[in-house]
Amino acid sequence: MPETKNSRVAQADADPMFIERWSPRALSPEPLSEKEIMALFEAARWAPSAYNDQPWLFRYAATEAELKQFRNILMERNLLWAGKAPFLAFLFARRKFNHNGQPNNWAVFDTGAAWMSLALQARKMGLYAHAMAGIKKEEAYRILDVSEEDYEAVIGIAVGRYGDPQLLPENELVREKYNMRRDISDIAVKGLKKTE
Amino acid sequence: MPETKNSRVAQADADPMFIERWSPRALSPEPLSEKEIMALFEAARWAPSAYNDQPWLFRYAATEAELKQFRNILMERNLLWAGKAPFLAFLFARRKFNHNGQPNNWAVFDTGAAWMSLALQARKMGLYAHAMAGIKKEEAYRILDVSEEDYEAVIGIAVGRYGDPQLLPENELVREKYNMRRDISDIAVKGLKKTE
Repeated sequence: MPETKNSRVAQADADPMFIERWSPRALSPEPLSEKEIMALFEAARWAPSAYNDQPWLFRYAATEAELKQFRNILMERNLLWAGKAPFLAFLFARRKFNHNGQPNNWAVFDTGAAWMSLALQARKMGLYAHAMAGIKKEEAYRILDVSEEDYEAVIGIAVGRYGDPQLLPENELVREKYNMRRDISDIAVKGLKKTE
Repeated sequence: MPETKNSRVAQADADPMFIERWSPRALSPEPLSEKEIMALFEAARWAPSAYNDQPWLFRYAATEAELKQFRNILMERNLLWAGKAPFLAFLFARRKFNHNGQPNNWAVFDTGAAWMSLALQARKMGLYAHAMAGIKKEEAYRILDVSEEDYEAVIGIAVGRYGDPQLLPENELVREKYNMRRDISDIAVKGLKKTE
Protein backbone atom coordinates (compact mmCIF):
# COMPACT_ATOMS: atom_id res chain seq x y z
CA MET A 1 0.00 0.00 0.00
CA PRO A 2 1.24 3.53 -0.73
CA GLU A 3 2.55 5.55 2.17
CA THR A 4 -0.53 7.75 1.88
CA LYS A 5 -2.42 4.97 3.65
CA ASN A 6 -3.01 6.94 6.83
CA SER A 7 -3.36 10.44 5.46
CA ARG A 8 -7.13 10.34 5.70
CA VAL A 9 -8.59 11.52 9.00
CA ALA A 10 -11.84 10.15 10.36
CA GLN A 11 -14.40 12.50 11.88
CA ALA A 12 -16.58 9.79 13.37
CA ASP A 13 -16.44 6.13 14.26
CA ALA A 14 -17.63 4.42 11.07
CA ASP A 15 -16.48 1.04 9.82
CA PRO A 16 -12.88 1.37 8.52
CA MET A 17 -13.90 -0.13 5.17
CA PHE A 18 -15.27 3.24 4.09
CA ILE A 19 -12.22 5.36 4.87
CA GLU A 20 -9.80 2.70 3.65
CA ARG A 21 -11.44 2.26 0.25
CA TRP A 22 -9.80 4.29 -2.46
CA SER A 23 -9.31 4.27 -6.22
CA PRO A 24 -5.73 3.52 -7.26
CA ARG A 25 -4.49 3.52 -10.82
CA ALA A 26 -1.62 1.08 -10.31
CA LEU A 27 -3.58 -2.09 -10.96
CA SER A 28 -1.82 -5.40 -11.47
CA PRO A 29 -2.71 -7.27 -14.69
CA GLU A 30 -3.12 -10.48 -12.67
CA PRO A 31 -6.52 -11.92 -13.67
CA LEU A 32 -9.51 -12.03 -11.37
CA SER A 33 -10.95 -15.44 -10.62
CA GLU A 34 -14.48 -16.31 -11.67
CA LYS A 35 -15.31 -16.55 -7.98
CA GLU A 36 -14.09 -13.00 -7.37
CA ILE A 37 -16.04 -11.65 -10.33
CA MET A 38 -19.25 -13.30 -9.24
CA ALA A 39 -18.79 -11.95 -5.70
CA LEU A 40 -18.53 -8.41 -7.10
CA PHE A 41 -21.86 -8.78 -8.86
CA GLU A 42 -23.45 -10.59 -5.93
CA ALA A 43 -22.73 -7.56 -3.74
CA ALA A 44 -24.07 -5.16 -6.37
CA ARG A 45 -27.17 -7.28 -6.90
CA TRP A 46 -28.51 -6.73 -3.38
CA ALA A 47 -28.48 -2.93 -3.53
CA PRO A 48 -31.87 -1.35 -2.88
CA SER A 49 -33.75 0.37 -5.69
CA ALA A 50 -36.99 2.20 -6.33
CA TYR A 51 -39.77 -0.38 -6.73
CA ASN A 52 -36.97 -2.95 -6.45
CA ASP A 53 -36.49 -2.41 -10.18
CA GLN A 54 -32.74 -3.15 -10.08
CA PRO A 55 -32.04 -0.90 -13.07
CA TRP A 56 -28.31 -1.65 -13.23
CA LEU A 57 -26.65 -3.53 -16.07
CA PHE A 58 -22.97 -4.44 -15.95
CA ARG A 59 -21.22 -5.32 -19.19
CA TYR A 60 -17.80 -6.72 -18.38
CA ALA A 61 -14.59 -8.09 -19.85
CA ALA A 62 -12.16 -10.45 -18.16
CA THR A 63 -10.24 -12.16 -20.97
CA GLU A 64 -7.65 -10.48 -23.16
CA ALA A 65 -9.90 -10.77 -26.21
CA GLU A 66 -12.77 -9.11 -24.39
CA LEU A 67 -10.57 -6.48 -22.76
CA LYS A 68 -9.16 -5.49 -26.12
CA GLN A 69 -12.64 -4.57 -27.32
CA PHE A 70 -13.66 -2.87 -24.10
CA ARG A 71 -10.56 -0.67 -24.07
CA ASN A 72 -11.93 1.11 -27.14
CA ILE A 73 -14.58 2.62 -24.86
CA LEU A 74 -12.05 4.19 -22.46
CA MET A 75 -10.83 7.77 -22.75
CA GLU A 76 -7.15 8.09 -23.69
CA ARG A 77 -6.07 9.30 -20.28
CA ASN A 78 -7.76 6.41 -18.49
CA LEU A 79 -6.35 3.99 -21.01
CA LEU A 80 -2.87 4.82 -19.67
CA TRP A 81 -3.59 2.95 -16.45
CA ALA A 82 -6.94 1.15 -16.84
CA GLY A 83 -5.66 -0.36 -20.08
CA LYS A 84 -3.68 -2.79 -17.92
CA ALA A 85 -6.55 -3.80 -15.65
CA PRO A 86 -7.58 -7.48 -15.80
CA PHE A 87 -11.25 -6.54 -15.48
CA LEU A 88 -13.19 -3.75 -17.12
CA ALA A 89 -16.90 -3.06 -16.90
CA PHE A 90 -19.29 -0.47 -18.21
CA LEU A 91 -22.28 0.28 -16.09
CA PHE A 92 -25.66 1.18 -17.58
CA ALA A 93 -28.90 2.35 -15.98
CA ARG A 94 -32.20 1.19 -17.49
CA ARG A 95 -34.27 4.28 -18.22
CA LYS A 96 -37.75 2.81 -17.71
CA PHE A 97 -39.34 0.76 -14.96
CA ASN A 98 -39.96 -2.87 -15.77
CA HIS A 99 -43.30 -2.99 -14.00
CA ASN A 100 -45.00 -0.19 -15.92
CA GLY A 101 -42.68 1.11 -18.64
CA GLN A 102 -42.67 4.60 -17.13
CA PRO A 103 -39.45 6.65 -16.84
CA ASN A 104 -37.44 5.62 -13.79
CA ASN A 105 -36.20 8.85 -12.23
CA TRP A 106 -34.13 6.92 -9.71
CA ALA A 107 -32.37 4.57 -12.15
CA VAL A 108 -29.05 6.40 -12.12
CA PHE A 109 -29.19 6.98 -8.36
CA ASP A 110 -29.92 3.31 -7.67
CA THR A 111 -27.17 2.28 -10.07
CA GLY A 112 -24.80 4.37 -7.96
CA ALA A 113 -25.77 2.28 -4.95
CA ALA A 114 -25.00 -0.94 -6.82
CA TRP A 115 -21.61 0.46 -7.86
CA MET A 116 -20.76 1.34 -4.25
CA SER A 117 -21.56 -2.20 -3.13
CA LEU A 118 -19.31 -3.61 -5.84
CA ALA A 119 -16.47 -1.29 -4.82
CA LEU A 120 -16.74 -2.27 -1.15
CA GLN A 121 -16.90 -5.97 -1.98
CA ALA A 122 -13.76 -5.57 -4.08
CA ARG A 123 -11.86 -4.37 -0.99
CA LYS A 124 -13.16 -7.30 1.04
CA MET A 125 -11.31 -9.55 -1.42
CA GLY A 126 -8.11 -7.53 -1.63
CA LEU A 127 -9.15 -5.95 -4.93
CA TYR A 128 -9.56 -2.31 -5.90
CA ALA A 129 -12.37 -0.91 -8.02
CA HIS A 130 -11.83 2.42 -9.76
CA ALA A 131 -14.73 4.19 -11.46
CA MET A 132 -14.18 6.27 -14.57
CA ALA A 133 -16.69 9.04 -15.17
CA GLY A 134 -15.37 9.95 -18.57
CA ILE A 135 -16.04 7.19 -21.08
CA LYS A 136 -16.77 7.16 -24.80
CA LYS A 137 -20.50 6.75 -24.43
CA GLU A 138 -21.27 6.43 -28.11
CA GLU A 139 -18.68 3.68 -28.35
CA ALA A 140 -20.19 1.99 -25.28
CA TYR A 141 -23.59 1.77 -26.95
CA ARG A 142 -22.15 0.74 -30.29
CA ILE A 143 -19.47 -1.77 -29.28
CA LEU A 144 -21.60 -3.38 -26.60
CA ASP A 145 -24.74 -3.21 -28.73
CA VAL A 146 -26.76 -1.61 -25.93
CA SER A 147 -29.79 0.48 -26.82
CA GLU A 148 -29.29 4.13 -25.90
CA GLU A 149 -33.04 4.51 -25.91
CA ASP A 150 -33.38 1.91 -23.18
CA TYR A 151 -30.18 2.42 -21.19
CA GLU A 152 -27.96 5.27 -20.06
CA ALA A 153 -24.21 4.57 -20.05
CA VAL A 154 -23.02 5.90 -16.70
CA ILE A 155 -19.42 4.94 -15.85
CA GLY A 156 -16.58 2.61 -16.60
CA ILE A 157 -15.03 0.43 -13.90
CA ALA A 158 -11.55 -1.07 -13.65
CA VAL A 159 -10.86 -3.74 -11.04
CA GLY A 160 -7.64 -5.46 -10.04
CA ARG A 161 -5.09 -6.16 -7.32
CA TYR A 162 -2.65 -3.43 -6.38
CA GLY A 163 0.27 -3.35 -8.78
CA ASP A 164 3.52 -1.45 -9.07
CA PRO A 165 2.96 2.33 -9.02
CA GLN A 166 6.40 2.84 -10.56
CA LEU A 167 4.99 1.40 -13.78
CA LEU A 168 2.54 4.30 -14.06
CA PRO A 169 3.29 7.19 -16.44
CA GLU A 170 4.68 10.11 -14.45
CA ASN A 171 1.53 12.21 -14.86
CA GLU A 172 -0.53 9.39 -13.39
CA LEU A 173 1.94 8.54 -10.63
CA VAL A 174 1.55 11.98 -9.04
CA ARG A 175 -2.21 11.36 -8.78
CA GLU A 176 -1.70 7.98 -7.08
CA LYS A 177 -2.76 8.99 -3.60
CA TYR A 178 -5.69 9.06 -1.25
CA ASN A 179 -7.90 12.03 -1.89
CA MET A 180 -9.61 13.90 0.92
CA ARG A 181 -13.19 14.82 1.70
CA ARG A 182 -15.24 17.76 2.91
CA ASP A 183 -16.11 17.90 6.59
CA ILE A 184 -19.27 16.22 7.78
CA SER A 185 -20.62 19.67 8.61
CA ASP A 186 -20.43 20.54 4.90
CA ILE A 187 -22.47 17.59 3.70
CA ALA A 188 -24.96 17.08 6.54
CA VAL A 189 -27.07 19.91 7.90
CA LYS A 190 -29.42 19.44 10.83
CA GLY A 191 -32.92 20.87 11.04
CA LEU A 192 -34.18 23.81 9.04
CA LYS A 193 -30.96 25.78 8.73
CA LYS A 194 -30.18 27.10 5.27
CA THR A 195 -27.58 25.38 3.12
CA GLU A 196 -25.77 28.54 2.11
CA MET B 1 -35.80 -10.08 13.13
CA PRO B 2 -38.69 -11.27 10.96
CA GLU B 3 -38.83 -14.93 10.03
CA THR B 4 -38.01 -13.94 6.46
CA LYS B 5 -34.38 -13.55 7.54
CA ASN B 6 -33.10 -16.46 5.52
CA SER B 7 -35.36 -16.31 2.51
CA ARG B 8 -32.70 -14.64 0.37
CA VAL B 9 -30.41 -16.97 -1.50
CA ALA B 10 -26.84 -16.03 -2.33
CA GLN B 11 -25.44 -16.81 -5.78
CA ALA B 12 -21.83 -16.05 -4.89
CA ASP B 13 -19.62 -15.64 -1.85
CA ALA B 14 -19.90 -11.90 -1.11
CA ASP B 15 -19.73 -10.33 2.34
CA PRO B 16 -22.98 -11.14 4.20
CA MET B 17 -23.56 -7.44 4.89
CA PHE B 18 -24.95 -7.03 1.39
CA ILE B 19 -27.49 -9.83 1.45
CA GLU B 20 -28.48 -9.15 5.06
CA ARG B 21 -29.20 -5.45 4.52
CA TRP B 22 -32.86 -4.72 3.92
CA SER B 23 -35.35 -1.91 4.30
CA PRO B 24 -37.90 -2.57 7.03
CA ARG B 25 -40.81 -0.30 7.85
CA ALA B 26 -41.19 -1.30 11.50
CA LEU B 27 -38.75 1.22 12.93
CA SER B 28 -38.59 1.87 16.66
CA PRO B 29 -39.00 5.51 17.73
CA GLU B 30 -35.98 5.15 20.03
CA PRO B 31 -33.66 8.09 19.21
CA LEU B 32 -30.31 7.71 17.50
CA SER B 33 -27.30 8.93 19.40
CA GLU B 34 -25.20 11.80 18.07
CA LYS B 35 -22.38 9.29 17.68
CA GLU B 36 -24.54 7.03 15.51
CA ILE B 37 -25.67 9.92 13.35
CA MET B 38 -22.14 11.15 12.75
CA ALA B 39 -21.01 7.62 11.86
CA LEU B 40 -23.73 7.45 9.19
CA PHE B 41 -22.43 10.62 7.57
CA GLU B 42 -18.81 9.63 8.03
CA ALA B 43 -19.46 6.51 5.95
CA ALA B 44 -21.30 8.50 3.28
CA ARG B 45 -18.56 11.14 3.17
CA TRP B 46 -15.91 8.75 1.87
CA ALA B 47 -17.86 7.62 -1.17
CA PRO B 48 -16.06 8.20 -4.46
CA SER B 49 -17.33 10.82 -6.89
CA ALA B 50 -16.50 12.33 -10.27
CA TYR B 51 -13.67 14.85 -9.79
CA ASN B 52 -14.07 14.12 -6.07
CA ASP B 53 -16.84 16.70 -6.15
CA GLN B 54 -18.85 15.04 -3.34
CA PRO B 55 -22.13 16.39 -4.69
CA TRP B 56 -24.29 14.95 -1.88
CA LEU B 57 -26.13 17.05 0.67
CA PHE B 58 -28.00 15.46 3.56
CA ARG B 59 -30.60 17.53 5.39
CA TYR B 60 -31.64 15.67 8.50
CA ALA B 61 -33.92 15.74 11.53
CA ALA B 62 -33.35 13.98 14.84
CA THR B 63 -35.43 15.89 17.39
CA GLU B 64 -39.21 15.84 17.60
CA ALA B 65 -39.40 19.51 16.60
CA GLU B 66 -37.28 18.89 13.52
CA LEU B 67 -39.01 15.62 12.64
CA LYS B 68 -42.40 17.33 12.76
CA GLN B 69 -41.29 19.70 10.02
CA PHE B 70 -39.55 17.03 7.95
CA ARG B 71 -42.63 14.77 7.99
CA ASN B 72 -44.40 17.33 5.81
CA ILE B 73 -42.09 16.27 2.98
CA LEU B 74 -43.08 12.59 3.14
CA MET B 75 -45.77 11.04 0.97
CA GLU B 76 -48.86 9.92 2.90
CA ARG B 77 -48.16 6.23 2.50
CA ASN B 78 -44.61 6.54 3.79
CA LEU B 79 -45.82 8.69 6.64
CA LEU B 80 -47.69 5.64 7.95
CA TRP B 81 -44.43 4.02 8.98
CA ALA B 82 -41.60 6.55 8.47
CA GLY B 83 -43.59 9.04 10.51
CA LYS B 84 -42.44 7.14 13.60
CA ALA B 85 -38.75 7.04 12.67
CA PRO B 86 -36.38 8.86 15.06
CA PHE B 87 -34.27 10.09 12.14
CA LEU B 88 -35.34 11.43 8.78
CA ALA B 89 -33.14 12.84 6.05
CA PHE B 90 -33.63 14.20 2.57
CA LEU B 91 -30.81 13.70 0.15
CA PHE B 92 -29.94 16.25 -2.52
CA ALA B 93 -27.48 16.14 -5.41
CA ARG B 94 -25.66 19.36 -6.37
CA ARG B 95 -26.26 19.94 -10.07
CA LYS B 96 -22.99 21.69 -10.93
CA PHE B 97 -19.35 20.92 -10.27
CA ASN B 98 -17.65 23.08 -7.69
CA HIS B 99 -14.40 23.31 -9.59
CA ASN B 100 -15.79 24.78 -12.81
CA GLY B 101 -19.52 25.41 -12.44
CA GLN B 102 -20.34 23.04 -15.29
CA PRO B 103 -23.25 20.56 -15.06
CA ASN B 104 -22.26 17.45 -13.13
CA ASN B 105 -23.72 14.52 -15.04
CA TRP B 106 -22.63 12.10 -12.31
CA ALA B 107 -24.06 14.00 -9.34
CA VAL B 108 -27.08 11.74 -8.87
CA PHE B 109 -25.06 8.59 -9.50
CA ASP B 110 -22.41 9.59 -6.97
CA THR B 111 -25.09 10.53 -4.47
CA GLY B 112 -26.40 7.00 -4.83
CA ALA B 113 -22.98 5.72 -3.77
CA ALA B 114 -23.03 7.93 -0.67
CA TRP B 115 -26.50 6.63 0.20
CA MET B 116 -25.36 3.01 -0.09
CA SER B 117 -22.46 3.67 2.28
CA LEU B 118 -24.83 5.23 4.80
CA ALA B 119 -27.19 2.26 4.57
CA LEU B 120 -24.39 -0.26 5.12
CA GLN B 121 -22.97 1.71 8.05
CA ALA B 122 -26.44 1.74 9.61
CA ARG B 123 -26.45 -2.06 9.68
CA LYS B 124 -22.97 -2.11 11.24
CA MET B 125 -24.52 -0.28 14.22
CA GLY B 126 -27.71 -2.34 14.46
CA LEU B 127 -29.72 0.31 12.65
CA TYR B 128 -31.79 0.11 9.48
CA ALA B 129 -31.91 2.73 6.76
CA HIS B 130 -34.89 2.78 4.41
CA ALA B 131 -34.89 4.99 1.31
CA MET B 132 -38.08 6.54 0.04
CA ALA B 133 -38.15 7.35 -3.67
CA GLY B 134 -41.46 9.14 -3.54
CA ILE B 135 -41.15 12.42 -1.65
CA LYS B 136 -42.85 15.79 -1.98
CA LYS B 137 -40.01 17.44 -3.84
CA GLU B 138 -41.53 20.91 -3.94
CA GLU B 139 -42.00 20.74 -0.19
CA ALA B 140 -38.41 19.56 0.22
CA TYR B 141 -37.07 22.63 -1.56
CA ARG B 142 -39.47 24.98 0.22
CA ILE B 143 -39.38 23.67 3.78
CA LEU B 144 -35.64 23.07 3.77
CA ASP B 145 -34.94 26.28 1.84
CA VAL B 146 -32.79 24.46 -0.70
CA SER B 147 -32.36 25.98 -4.16
CA GLU B 148 -33.93 23.77 -6.83
CA GLU B 149 -31.69 25.49 -9.34
CA ASP B 150 -28.60 24.31 -7.50
CA TYR B 151 -29.75 20.97 -6.10
CA GLU B 152 -31.90 18.03 -7.12
CA ALA B 153 -33.98 16.43 -4.36
CA VAL B 154 -33.45 12.68 -4.81
CA ILE B 155 -34.79 10.57 -1.95
CA GLY B 156 -35.93 10.57 1.64
CA ILE B 157 -34.29 8.33 4.24
CA ALA B 158 -35.68 6.94 7.49
CA VAL B 159 -33.29 5.36 10.01
CA GLY B 160 -33.95 3.56 13.25
CA ARG B 161 -33.67 0.37 15.25
CA TYR B 162 -36.03 -2.48 14.45
CA GLY B 163 -39.37 -2.00 16.16
CA ASP B 164 -42.56 -3.96 16.54
CA PRO B 165 -44.01 -4.97 13.16
CA GLN B 166 -47.40 -5.57 14.80
CA LEU B 167 -47.68 -1.80 15.21
CA LEU B 168 -47.66 -1.35 11.42
CA PRO B 169 -50.93 -0.74 9.60
CA GLU B 170 -52.11 -3.99 7.98
CA ASN B 171 -51.32 -2.81 4.44
CA GLU B 172 -47.75 -2.07 5.47
CA LEU B 173 -47.31 -5.23 7.55
CA VAL B 174 -47.81 -7.46 4.51
CA ARG B 175 -44.92 -5.64 2.81
CA GLU B 176 -42.60 -6.15 5.80
CA LYS B 177 -40.35 -8.79 4.27
CA TYR B 178 -37.11 -9.28 2.44
CA ASN B 179 -37.49 -8.68 -1.24
CA MET B 180 -35.65 -10.72 -3.83
CA ARG B 181 -33.32 -9.89 -6.68
CA ARG B 182 -32.71 -10.85 -10.30
CA ASP B 183 -30.06 -13.46 -11.02
CA ILE B 184 -26.49 -12.35 -11.55
CA SER B 185 -26.83 -13.49 -15.15
CA ASP B 186 -29.55 -10.88 -15.65
CA ILE B 187 -27.49 -7.93 -14.43
CA ALA B 188 -23.97 -8.86 -15.55
CA VAL B 189 -23.18 -9.86 -19.11
CA LYS B 190 -19.70 -10.94 -20.16
CA GLY B 191 -18.03 -9.87 -23.38
CA LEU B 192 -19.83 -8.59 -26.44
CA LYS B 193 -23.03 -10.56 -26.13
CA LYS B 194 -26.22 -8.59 -26.65
CA THR B 195 -28.30 -7.55 -23.68
CA GLU B 196 -31.62 -8.77 -25.03
